[in-house]
Amino acid sequence: MIRTSDAARRTPGYYFPTPLAGAPDGLAAVCAALGHALGATRAARRPEGPLPAGDPTAVLAAAGAPLGPAQLPTEGIGPEGALRLLARVLVEHGVDLTHPHAAAHLQPPPLAVAVAADALADAGNASVDTYDSGPSAIAVERWVVDVLARLAGLGPAADGVLTPGGSLSNLLGLLLARDAAAARRGVDARRHGIAALPGPVVLCSELVHFSVHRACAALGLGEFAVRAIPVDGRRRMRPEALAGVLRNLGPERTPLAVVATAGNTDFGAIDPLPQLAEVTREHGVWLHVDAAYGFGALFSEHLAPRLAGLELADSITVDLHKLGWQPAAASVLLTAGAAAFAPLGREVAYLNPADDTDAGYEGLLGRSLQTTRRADAVKIAATLLAHGRRGLGRLVDTCHGLATHAQQRIAAEPELELVCPVELTTVVFRYRTPYPAMDDEVNARLRRRLAESGRALVGRTATRLAGPGSPRRVCLKFTLLNPAATQRDVDALVDAVLDAGRECLTELDRELDEEGAA
Amino acid sequence: MIRTSDAARRTPGYYFPTPLAGAPDGLAAVCAALGHALGATRAARRPEGPLPAGDPTAVLAAAGAPLGPAQLPTEGIGPEGALRLLARVLVEHGVDLTHPHAAAHLQPPPLAVAVAADALADAGNASVDTYDSGPSAIAVERWVVDVLARLAGLGPAADGVLTPGGSLSNLLGLLLARDAAAARRGVDARRHGIAALPGPVVLCSELVHFSVHRACAALGLGEFAVRAIPVDGRRRMRPEALAGVLRNLGPERTPLAVVATAGNTDFGAIDPLPQLAEVTREHGVWLHVDAAYGFGALFSEHLAPRLAGLELADSITVDLHKLGWQPAAASVLLTAGAAAFAPLGREVAYLNPADDTDAGYEGLLGRSLQTTRRADAVKIAATLLAHGRRGLGRLVDTCHGLATHAQQRIAAEPELELVCPVELTTVVFRYRTPYPAMDDEVNARLRRRLAESGRALVGRTATRLAGPGSPRRVCLKFTLLNPAATQRDVDALVDAVLDAGRECLTELDRELDEEGAA
Repeated sequence: MIRTSDAARRTPGYYFPTPLAGAPDGLAAVCAALGHALGATRAARRPEGPLPAGDPTAVLAAAGAPLGPAQLPTEGIGPEGALRLLARVLVEHGVDLTHPHAAAHLQPPPLAVAVAADALADAGNASVDTYDSGPSAIAVERWVVDVLARLAGLGPAADGVLTPGGSLSNLLGLLLARDAAAARRGVDARRHGIAALPGPVVLCSELVHFSVHRACAALGLGEFAVRAIPVDGRRRMRPEALAGVLRNLGPERTPLAVVATAGNTDFGAIDPLPQLAEVTREHGVWLHVDAAYGFGALFSEHLAPRLAGLELADSITVDLHKLGWQPAAASVLLTAGAAAFAPLGREVAYLNPADDTDAGYEGLLGRSLQTTRRADAVKIAATLLAHGRRGLGRLVDTCHGLATHAQQRIAAEPELELVCPVELTTVVFRYRTPYPAMDDEVNARLRRRLAESGRALVGRTATRLAGPGSPRRVCLKFTLLNPAATQRDVDALVDAVLDAGRECLTELDRELDEEGAA
Repeated sequence: MIRTSDAARRTPGYYFPTPLAGAPDGLAAVCAALGHALGATRAARRPEGPLPAGDPTAVLAAAGAPLGPAQLPTEGIGPEGALRLLARVLVEHGVDLTHPHAAAHLQPPPLAVAVAADALADAGNASVDTYDSGPSAIAVERWVVDVLARLAGLGPAADGVLTPGGSLSNLLGLLLARDAAAARRGVDARRHGIAALPGPVVLCSELVHFSVHRACAALGLGEFAVRAIPVDGRRRMRPEALAGVLRNLGPERTPLAVVATAGNTDFGAIDPLPQLAEVTREHGVWLHVDAAYGFGALFSEHLAPRLAGLELADSITVDLHKLGWQPAAASVLLTAGAAAFAPLGREVAYLNPADDTDAGYEGLLGRSLQTTRRADAVKIAATLLAHGRRGLGRLVDTCHGLATHAQQRIAAEPELELVCPVELTTVVFRYRTPYPAMDDEVNARLRRRLAESGRALVGRTATRLAGPGSPRRVCLKFTLLNPAATQRDVDALVDAVLDAGRECLTELDRELDEEGAA
């Protein structure tokens, strides 16, 4: 077996400016390059808070400026210079998710083991679509899918695939459900499209993630195919309301799927899965569970029982780049059986001709809308093996504990109003003002004030405070995913909100006075 | 600003088993962890060839075995143990794209600078969907999009977005084209779906990538919406044939898009873009160019002229995880204008409420089907800055040179038949046998023989050798993307094919003798 030798490298035309990451000593080059980046991050002026202070337009301009004009330079500055430059840009003008006051989104500070494993996978650049683009990566993905399916309680026939994120997992789940329902109606959606499919309907809680609407638009169903089912006082889909809607769908309608949520983005609310599964089974409708956020609760012995019924789903969206401390993307679509993936089966001459498949040369092309697909499973496998259920469960419990601490603190503050009891690791609340008509404005403004000062990064949402039909009001939200944060950090975060609220009120009073005087 | 202190870490309930990658010293922990992986890759038994020898089923089983039973362990083995284990699995049972005999797929051995930059981005875990999930990552993505749009020759109004791969870029481009065409027909596809859209048609060369068919199925159009246009002798779409089909589409048909290819996966063929653009302009049809493979030719002064006309496209698919030496994913969908993204616009209470957007808090949510989206642009920016157009152009020219060398060598070998002249960095050819009826079987078998022995990884496809209507025949393919490989490596690869072909012939002769004797 001939390896590229130094002699061969002197062949005319040879030009090779930088090491290849996957070569026998390529990972050493990656480590060295990362060392340059590390040096630059240490020398960079890290913002004091979780994000850079300043008006967002100014921050974006400052972040882009060091990159130079938007034109490909003729000559490069070399790997070291490029890495130092980008490390500085990312640290000085980026978000710091490890900062204890970063509490806006379901975006965790990732574990070092996951980042290192992802770099290892990147260096090899295996792709899981065909056997010969990376057999080991395929084996690792199959292991991860099997482990997660088992954790979900699915049976031995379960299957699944990694996807680039929860929104695309939901889209894929709905595509499989759509084509299965079409087939039962005698419509070959894959070949003929869905024009002949009578009145497609997707049923879900009124609080379902917007990616379900987006998926319906992408899949050609239109957003109006979504039928919103009302929620109960704990913001969970009402099974009897679902049953009523399904009973009353006429024969001119085709229910494609019920989308239940296990861990609403804002409230962490978990729909009553066993009751919903009973309804979907009775009506023969596909049950998709969007557990993008909630799935990670299975790592915790304490919280896992809240996901009872998950094993009854036909498909499940999992995002371990939420409660799982992975860098994005680490999403999985699990299915109750492999047959669910039938609509994605393809034989392609350059990838999986039948005689190769018969000989065992098989990849994962038939489970995905992607062709080349990165080995995202490697970082997940590394994390599961490194920390086990107990280690990850403790991270979940720690963040849940921070949320319940925040809840107590908020409930005890007269200036704050708790909107909803904590379910997982988010807390939704409001800052109260003496002028209720101004509450929305003050809450929105105080959040921007904190962000612009760089002091704290708090989430925001809107919800009905007074039941069905009441107006949606602006709320604040802590999304607590930093297991290194402490109760003291949470207290300081609450204090920062209170300070900003008072500042906004003073500002608003002054504005009202000026308006009155004018 | 309070930072988590050692004192705070002693708060009851605190449990934190592993460093967070994005913390001030988190990157040091990533480097250390990667060091463990590096140690394990050095100690591992690297296969002699580009992939492990053995029957594929056995290889996959051997790769999965070290991971243990498919069950989440209760206790973890720690980050070091997990990384060592996975490093060994990936090296011992994976593909080595840096091996000079890895020549099967459009999957390059990635540059160390790109892998290090991707690890840097991973550590921070910024997401580009909203301002406050990572302003610097947004600035970097905007810079990369602008640089690539300019390189493509698009005007100052151009826009674009990163996607998880070429197949999804094609899907997104067709979604935008579909909804724009529907709007012109008075159909609000986003809300009402496409049931009322009359006879949707997507026109493309008969050699278009299968992801276009898949996208049509996903988008609810059905694969039968694809109308295949014949190709010329150089496997390029015939503009006059396209014009004829468009002229003859009745009013009951809606042409959604013409999909041209700039760099066919197998042959590198580039459709005649200026002529196709003239036809699409005349008929007012969206021109999408799938330049997933070919775009990188723009880095080369020598090859760039072949992409003339690319600037006339309405949307362009770019994959820098092909001719760009990035780890996957590094795909971009470029558009001629920002208005193209209108169908994806969404206002979401927890992400981009209108008052925040008015205040400048804006992310890239409205350009993507994804929500959380990793900062894939960082590695691309690092590579463009590090090597510039000249450095990347030399990599492209080196690989193109290897392909033309392979072409000469193949043309000179009586046992081999060149199928098509080299355009970019692939070479399609066949092994000739004395029994033409057996050629397909021998070519397929010799490729598997090489793979199973682990000696060489050669591509495969099927194509019509004798013009329209002739049967598709099995061909072999070298996909040459390793800039560290030499002409001598290519010669050795050709020798390996010749050896395997002769072995297969001997084997087949023996089989035929045995059949005759039986």
